[in-house]
Amino acid sequence: MAAAPEVEALLFDVFGTVVDWRGSIERLGRDFAGRQGLPALDWAAFADAWRARYQPAMAAVREGRRPFVRLDILHRENLEAILPDFGLDRLDGAARAELTLFWHRLDPWPDSVPGMTRLKRRHILAAQSNGNIALIVDMARHGGLPWDVVLGAEVVGHYKPEPAAYLGACAALDRAPGRCLMVAAHNDDLAAAAACGLRTAFVRRPAEKAPGETADLAPSGDWDLVVDSLEKLAERLGC
Amino acid sequence: MAAAPEVEALLFDVFGTVVDWRGSIERLGRDFAGRQGLPALDWAAFADAWRARYQPAMAAVREGRRPFVRLDILHRENLEAILPDFGLDRLDGAARAELTLFWHRLDPWPDSVPGMTRLKRRHILAAQSNGNIALIVDMARHGGLPWDVVLGAEVVGHYKPEPAAYLGACAALDRAPGRCLMVAAHNDDLAAAAACGLRTAFVRRPAEKAPGETADLAPSGDWDLVVDSLEKLAERLGC
Repeated sequence: MAAAPEVEALLFDVFGTVVDWRGSIERLGRDFAGRQGLPALDWAAFADAWRARYQPAMAAVREGRRPFVRLDILHRENLEAILPDFGLDRLDGAARAELTLFWHRLDPWPDSVPGMTRLKRRHILAAQSNGNIALIVDMARHGGLPWDVVLGAEVVGHYKPEPAAYLGACAALDRAPGRCLMVAAHNDDLAAAAACGLRTAFVRRPAEKAPGETADLAPSGDWDLVVDSLEKLAERLGC
Repeated sequence: MAAAPEVEALLFDVFGTVVDWRGSIERLGRDFAGRQGLPALDWAAFADAWRARYQPAMAAVREGRRPFVRLDILHRENLEAILPDFGLDRLDGAARAELTLFWHRLDPWPDSVPGMTRLKRRHILAAQSNGNIALIVDMARHGGLPWDVVLGAEVVGHYKPEPAAYLGACAALDRAPGRCLMVAAHNDDLAAAAACGLRTAFVRRPAEKAPGETADLAPSGDWDLVVDSLEKLAERLGC
């Protein structure tokens, strides 16, 4: 990147970029099933089905069809919708609440904590996720993610990729968009950030994808940086 | 405290409780005056005059006489108001901006970082300050304060001691008020938190007070805990 020293704040997408939602939901699901004595179930497919309802649920908020609600609420609604498809519609309220909180306990990719620890020396590390505050805080304590600040949907009141989500985060940090680098494994997130004047770093996360999925395997835009891990990002930024 | 293990989150007042605003403004002012070639000036009195306008400025927001604005804005306005009293009305815009940012560079009390580091092992550490997000983030990076999350006025949209400030913070953490402990060196902050159902810890900070000032030298309510430092608080909470 031409003028990397000017970047003061790194805004991170979290699901898929910093943490392995797919593998974690699968692991947590298997453990849950064991404790509950449930029959065998394809927990990777369960994770994918749950995640598939993520963007449509936020779209209702983005398009003004419902007022802003925290992602925990959307995760719970989306869970209710898929439980019958997996033969789990008999789970009680406590079990459903426990499942919803899986998203608070996602594991970081192996390079996330070492990379972020290096990046933090010179840069503000901000979670710029659609996850709500409690979700991101619990996840950070679970995985040891060294955030300086939790921004994102609940703080700015808008879900990505609305421009207000990115611009609100930069304003909260009192940094111009050009001093902020959006770090994400998803091209649409970076495209929206770039349109707001932020710099962009694409992180390749092939393990996030379901078998056969091709979206976001490669960068589709002219991003400032393209890296394979957060440790590589630290290296590229001279940290 | 009868049931300390139930406390999950610690909400901290910051100015005076975690950082030494008075001594820091005095030190930063002396350094600033040296660089600017200003005549000798009582920077402790300057700090007190600046701080004296803090509550009245927030009152305008609390009482709905003006919409919510970040504390950086109020600090700048209050600075403009006192500059003539200290013979500093000729300072240019850049100098005034630098002075306003003094509040981003306040030093922690000596026990703050070690105490918080211990407390963080078992508890969520939340900045529940009237300071804005950028102010608290910059200050944390300056002094090494290990926050899990920055809450406070800008996140919840209300200045303490409005009930909505405390209840909004607990809601953001998805914890009941009874699972949250408000930590402050000021009785009015604790009284407002207790009225919202939070637990309370009073930290004695005699060095915060101007000579002759008696308010908040001692606890004036039946707080759950009274301690002399954040290290003592860690000890009392078994961390």
